[in-house]
Amino acid sequence: MERLVKAGLLYDFYGGLLTAKQRKAIELYYQEDWSLAEIAAEEDVSRQAIHDLLGRSERQMEEYEAKLGLVERFLKRQSLLTGALAKVDCLLKITAGSPTEREELLAVKKELQQLLESDI
Amino acid sequence: MERLVKAGLLYDFYGGLLTAKQRKAIELYYQEDWSLAEIAAEEDVSRQAIHDLLGRSERQMEEYEAKLGLVERFLKRQSLLTGALAKVDCLLKITAGSPTEREELLAVKKELQQLLESDI
Repeated sequence: MERLVKAGLLYDFYGGLLTAKQRKAIELYYQEDWSLAEIAAEEDVSRQAIHDLLGRSERQMEEYEAKLGLVERFLKRQSLLTGALAKVDCLLKITAGSPTEREELLAVKKELQQLLESDI
Repeated sequence: MERLVKAGLLYDFYGGLLTAKQRKAIELYYQEDWSLAEIAAEEDVSRQAIHDLLGRSERQMEEYEAKLGLVERFLKRQSLLTGALAKVDCLLKITAGSPTEREELLAVKKELQQLLESDI
């Protein structure tokens, strides 16, 4: 998995277990696209210190993932949900069902979409 | 939520972050239904020590939950999945769809059940 995507997913799940300082550095680096030097200037520390802080944070999140596997479970869920949603979409296209049936299918579709979007 | 159910859910999600000693005490107490005195005898410590260990473990898991909210998200997902599954079941009963349509619906049902069962 691409490093940026992986870091983002790890952060979605385990960011709450990091310190405020770690979270700030990760957000600036990965989400706001600041350079190490820019973050270092903002925090009044060396570029190396930020580099180490980010490395430590990522290793820490990898360790949580090794223990809890939340990102792995999330990706498995997303894959099942995407599959189910595609089938419901297909049914909505081919079905000659009654209005009640279409309504039920649309309700299922909406719930699956809600799960896909809200589920972190 | 009933204390036992809640402790079980917290343990499902955060057990991996506890020590082996904490996990053993929780499993004996909540899953194997041992008494505090029995666990204390097995571990060769006082009943009070086990009482404290369990209390500390639960507080620790509550703190993780306050930071990550995994149990809360899990319950929300389960509720949406149960709703979607009920609708698919209803559709399977009322639909006069073609065999292809029924097959697709059954595939959606299977995926939803897989999500409900495997998802911790």
